[in-house]
Amino acid sequence: MAIPRFLIIADGDFAPMTSKTANSVIRYHPERVVGVLDRQHAGQKVQDVLGFGGSIPVLASMAEGLLLKPDTVLIGIAPAGGRLPDEWRVWLADALDAGCDVWNGLHTFLGDDPVLAERARANGRRIYDIRRPPANLPIADGLAGDVDAFVLLTVGTDCNVGKMTSQLQLTRQLNDLGVRTRFVATGQTGIMIEGWGIGVDAVIADFIAGAAEELVLEGAKGADIVMVEGQGSIIHPGYSGVTLGLLHGSCPDAMILCHQATRDFIGDYRRKAWLKIPALSQYVKMYELLGNAVHPTKVISICLNTYDLSDAEARAACASAEKETGLPATDPVRFDAKPILDTIVSARQEWQRRPKAD
Amino acid sequence: MAIPRFLIIADGDFAPMTSKTANSVIRYHPERVVGVLDRQHAGQKVQDVLGFGGSIPVLASMAEGLLLKPDTVLIGIAPAGGRLPDEWRVWLADALDAGCDVWNGLHTFLGDDPVLAERARANGRRIYDIRRPPANLPIADGLAGDVDAFVLLTVGTDCNVGKMTSQLQLTRQLNDLGVRTRFVATGQTGIMIEGWGIGVDAVIADFIAGAAEELVLEGAKGADIVMVEGQGSIIHPGYSGVTLGLLHGSCPDAMILCHQATRDFIGDYRRKAWLKIPALSQYVKMYELLGNAVHPTKVISICLNTYDLSDAEARAACASAEKETGLPATDPVRFDAKPILDTIVSARQEWQRRPKAD
Repeated sequence: MAIPRFLIIADGDFAPMTSKTANSVIRYHPERVVGVLDRQHAGQKVQDVLGFGGSIPVLASMAEGLLLKPDTVLIGIAPAGGRLPDEWRVWLADALDAGCDVWNGLHTFLGDDPVLAERARANGRRIYDIRRPPANLPIADGLAGDVDAFVLLTVGTDCNVGKMTSQLQLTRQLNDLGVRTRFVATGQTGIMIEGWGIGVDAVIADFIAGAAEELVLEGAKGADIVMVEGQGSIIHPGYSGVTLGLLHGSCPDAMILCHQATRDFIGDYRRKAWLKIPALSQYVKMYELLGNAVHPTKVISICLNTYDLSDAEARAACASAEKETGLPATDPVRFDAKPILDTIVSARQEWQRRPKAD
Repeated sequence: MAIPRFLIIADGDFAPMTSKTANSVIRYHPERVVGVLDRQHAGQKVQDVLGFGGSIPVLASMAEGLLLKPDTVLIGIAPAGGRLPDEWRVWLADALDAGCDVWNGLHTFLGDDPVLAERARANGRRIYDIRRPPANLPIADGLAGDVDAFVLLTVGTDCNVGKMTSQLQLTRQLNDLGVRTRFVATGQTGIMIEGWGIGVDAVIADFIAGAAEELVLEGAKGADIVMVEGQGSIIHPGYSGVTLGLLHGSCPDAMILCHQATRDFIGDYRRKAWLKIPALSQYVKMYELLGNAVHPTKVISICLNTYDLSDAEARAACASAEKETGLPATDPVRFDAKPILDTIVSARQEWQRRPKAD
């Protein structure tokens, strides 16, 4: 596809820890972002709000945004209450009239909005509802285990611990080393960054693993390594089904365990201190036990997210994770990712020497 | 609800091992079934075809069936190819005109068929699409762990090993013992037998556990024991996500492991001998490890499905399962279920004595 020119809507919720989709697109593709619509921070630069993103302007209105000639308006936050505000509908209609496509990762499909659908049709533009599952997904059939690329899956202690961020970092560095590595997106933010993928949390339950299988088959074309975006956690009380379906459907040859170093309890819960996060070695055991039941796999290293620690604390957290699990651990966004890259390269070499079935 | 009078459509596929939905409804509620429409066996009794079901007649046409005054036409098989044959559409329209409701467990929703929907409306009848997920399911929140009833979940080595059949048997016998036990259905056949439930394999992936939680909260009302219908297997490559979501959303206090004694490989696969079924003790380990991560639970006994074994072979299979796992094992459909019932009663007593959180 042509490189898009995004205008991101993050009105009312543009901030370091909240606007995850907007922030990730800006972090990985700042060159694609012409501006961010947020009346609260209008007039500032993205750098001032997020601490990265450079001189991308924050704008007060769609009219201002359209002056910057975007070709795609991307919805970068979930509006409060989950429903599309009437005001946003007007903005999106104006953007479609100005010749923009719309990329939407909300659970509410904008292609089903009669007004917006008609504007898109009349202007020959596309509304891309990222979470809409493709038709005719298969029941998983183990095909991902047979691809001619090394399949790597990130697995987590919880949601929102940095699985995607770690992977995008590692993908870039592996490609820099000459290893053809393809990131396959399984969630809305990853899809917005890559331009394709399937939101596996939005498919019908029977097809989670089938969706993962399709993604691996597609991602393996011409790749040495397929980097599958992990989701949730195998013990997350709400989302573990998605995590296990993804594990069994993608048939990873190796896994990288991701954790946010200062997190003690599974997030997302009313009772904040309900479920204590067990030891990392316990996760290694669970992911390996369940993963190996379908396809030979192992956890090869640990990615820690240490964003809220000092350098010294972050190094101590990595050392402690290494000691507890016996596996190399680092924060690949903050420190040199080489210890993790080395485990990937050597696990792939071992995989290449595996005895092959007929 | 009033007791329904079912006319079951099983045309072309009415047989002991294929028409699972039809057969289960007949097995558990023969008094509700006025007839079965199947041109292949028309003129016979259900007993002659299935080996149970007594004198329920098999009929050659919808007209014959309607003479028996059903109030509900129930689709008891999946038609070849998954799509509704045109002929069936005519039958269903005639049944709606004759004042019947329609219960449908196919993935294709008949309420969305314009012709049938219009006939239902005109006649004031209901089309119950069993697999259509309810709106506004929650993300699971651990609430099922707090209900004032003992929650029991069946878990399996594979799909279609007898989880539901075992549970319906145990539910009946527990109620006979005076323990108020409520079966909550999580799949289409169970829903047709109970008249309510949620097909957890048909909900959006993020809501599997939330659907299980809702079912337990509803099932616990006025019950001593909630018997949650299990689905799939924790290592089934296609459906494991549903199984784990159900485990974490329902927060069972105990589990019963179900297995078909002669099955060596996970079914459903192209490559028949792809995934060997591991030892039962390995399943006990996996279900307990993953289950306990969210709510205290344990496997208390083993239900074996021995339908294709001689009595002597079946007894040997039960003895061998007991020896391997250290847990009581029997076929509760074939033999006295007392060993299993005893484990349920005593596990519930132990649960009643548990230390309670404030």
